Amino acid sequence: MKITVLGGDGYCGWATALYLSKRGHVVSIVDNFARRQWDHELGVQTLTPILPLTDRLRTWKALTGTEIDLLVGDVTDYEFLSSVLQRVQPDAVVHFAEQRAAPYSMIDRKHAVFTQVNNVVGTLNLLFAIREVVPECHLVKLGTMGEYGTPNIDIEEGYIQIEHNGRRDILPYPKQPGSFYHLSKVHDSHNIMFACRIWNLRATDLNQGVVYGTLTDEVGLDEALINRFDYDEVFGTVLNRFCVEAAVEHPLTVYGKGGQTRGYIDIRDTVRCIELACLNPADPGECRVYNQFTEQFSVLELARLVQSAAAHFGLKAAIDHIPDPRVEKEEHYYNAKHSKLVDLGLRPHMLSDSVIDSLLNVATRYRDRVDESLFLPRIDWRKARNDRQTRPTLVGPTSHRG
Amino acid sequence: MKITVLGGDGYCGWATALYLSKRGHVVSIVDNFARRQWDHELGVQTLTPILPLTDRLRTWKALTGTEIDLLVGDVTDYEFLSSVLQRVQPDAVVHFAEQRAAPYSMIDRKHAVFTQVNNVVGTLNLLFAIREVVPECHLVKLGTMGEYGTPNIDIEEGYIQIEHNGRRDILPYPKQPGSFYHLSKVHDSHNIMFACRIWNLRATDLNQGVVYGTLTDEVGLDEALINRFDYDEVFGTVLNRFCVEAAVEHPLTVYGKGGQTRGYIDIRDTVRCIELACLNPADPGECRVYNQFTEQFSVLELARLVQSAAAHFGLKAAIDHIPDPRVEKEEHYYNAKHSKLVDLGLRPHMLSDSVIDSLLNVATRYRDRVDESLFLPRIDWRKARNDRQTRPTLVGPTSHRG
Repeated sequence: MKITVLGGDGYCGWATALYLSKRGHVVSIVDNFARRQWDHELGVQTLTPILPLTDRLRTWKALTGTEIDLLVGDVTDYEFLSSVLQRVQPDAVVHFAEQRAAPYSMIDRKHAVFTQVNNVVGTLNLLFAIREVVPECHLVKLGTMGEYGTPNIDIEEGYIQIEHNGRRDILPYPKQPGSFYHLSKVHDSHNIMFACRIWNLRATDLNQGVVYGTLTDEVGLDEALINRFDYDEVFGTVLNRFCVEAAVEHPLTVYGKGGQTRGYIDIRDTVRCIELACLNPADPGECRVYNQFTEQFSVLELARLVQSAAAHFGLKAAIDHIPDPRVEKEEHYYNAKHSKLVDLGLRPHMLSDSVIDSLLNVATRYRDRVDESLFLPRIDWRKARNDRQTRPTLVGPTSHRG
Repeated sequence: MKITVLGGDGYCGWATALYLSKRGHVVSIVDNFARRQWDHELGVQTLTPILPLTDRLRTWKALTGTEIDLLVGDVTDYEFLSSVLQRVQPDAVVHFAEQRAAPYSMIDRKHAVFTQVNNVVGTLNLLFAIREVVPECHLVKLGTMGEYGTPNIDIEEGYIQIEHNGRRDILPYPKQPGSFYHLSKVHDSHNIMFACRIWNLRATDLNQGVVYGTLTDEVGLDEALINRFDYDEVFGTVLNRFCVEAAVEHPLTVYGKGGQTRGYIDIRDTVRCIELACLNPADPGECRVYNQFTEQFSVLELARLVQSAAAHFGLKAAIDHIPDPRVEKEEHYYNAKHSKLVDLGLRPHMLSDSVIDSLLNVATRYRDRVDESLFLPRIDWRKARNDRQTRPTLVGPTSHRG
């Protein structure tokens, strides 16, 4: 298939582009390098040193003989986006090209507005561009499990049958997102459902859980292909952060009681889910929703798993309960369905000791690059204005480093 | 109370500002005159000739001795908006300052993007400004009944108790909005709920039905205070349009079968509902939702009511079923709750023959200003690009005019 990956220079996008290319699809990447720019803005770096995208793509070509096209531009620029679809004529567009960090959206008003406008306009542009240029093209859109919040009933995959006053209907599952970023994804979901309805577009909305891991088979082929491994409070996902904290024997930073339970997924399953969605497109007019995660954990459970794995490495990882900077339930019911991708053929990689070991291995290997000042949260949901313009430390390596 | 009306130069905003002023509240209006600009863009004029806002306000002062402050600016400009709240220190802010026409949002991509960005950013700015400047201030936000769509179950007021797999929760009512405009209101609703939760703001989200009527007691005091009476396909609401069509003996333009059923409200009740919401503020942290309408009608029922009232004026009003330019169910279940504002004291003005007579009187009085080329829909939901840049007729008065 001809598949265009929007945001193909990012964490999930890069792994997905390579996987799809390896599987024989004709892949093109669209990116504006916003993600790298946000690193500069926040004064953070991914743990793993990543190369410029052109170098990565050259390496991929050299190793596999396969070319991945690169189209540089911003999806909020409609003329650019529609020209890409005109030129590539993709069978599927995988849309990762959004600002994807909840804390980033909670820095202050400008970041909240930027996140919502950037994400909503990018997706609106994509819907119009598909409608006008490639109406048969299948949109595979990354949403998030965070759209649902933590309701006291089971979470279904996108829709729920409701019986009420003796009548019934199947309706979009009610959403209770927990940040301006998560809200932007809810806005997208509503816009996509509507576009499918009025224009007969095909869409799959993948409500992804928290992704962990760095190595996929493709990324592991060469150091030059290495993927991001974010551990900072803004873009770092929690399991990655715990592993990096353990590697430098920093206490694992559990927010509040740690009973916050979410769905998690190995990045090797992310890439497979995307291919499964592409290979089994939605029907015209259909807006499918799949919950893209494989296991549920509470934050404290993850901390304990990392703590125990770290002990085998001879690393002491204490667990610190720090005040939760987010406004969220620290203990709650959580049971989210996730069978539709399994029905399509997903065979999940479960979070085993060996997976955590491999994460700890990566973290240990790059421990000299760890900036411990990035662990502690500085963005408080309860404030309308958080200072991320000043840096807390501009000193050298801390005492934990080798 | 000190009440600021955002969008106070518009149809509902103007009537509300005068009513609140008459009732003894200290009223200020914020407007950027975008609504008047859209008339120029679309080549339309309200049936009733409206004066510049400064003239209207001078007249109000002359008649009542009461001053209404005017602050000219755009709510998407945060510095402006926060300076207004700083200066006025309102007890309540009534937020009408959005692009409010579904067809306008469906013209093309630019209008869809404009509508969503304008409405979402304005409301985000307002939430941040209240949080930062007047955290006790009560936000009274105009939403729309169109957020709910037409589910096959009863529509509740904002939230619904769901029992599912043996557990239960009260969740936001699932939304199925029917245009990029209605979607923008759903986005707003989610953003407001979240802001109340994290910042303890007070908000009332009024899901208003289709508004009809022009005359309120205040507006009727002097010709210089007259309100808008929109009848064009873009900003005209259906009952107003039917009355104007009847006044010039143009067939009443029913979209499709006409079974589309919605909630309706007299503008005299709109203004009263706003005051009731202000006088009974939400608690800190509470995001209340009220369905602000008084009666349900199908489009065909309205057409028949107008047809019959017109006959008493000696006017022949045929009913034309034209293809529905919208994507919507033309026959469906509809039962929406609307008791909360009644509980607060609303005594509804029902749509009686005398109300339709008064609408027909206004329409007949200004019939020389009617532009019949504005009746027929030119904006098709199924198209991604509708031409509203060219005008269909630039000829003189049609044969129907006197």
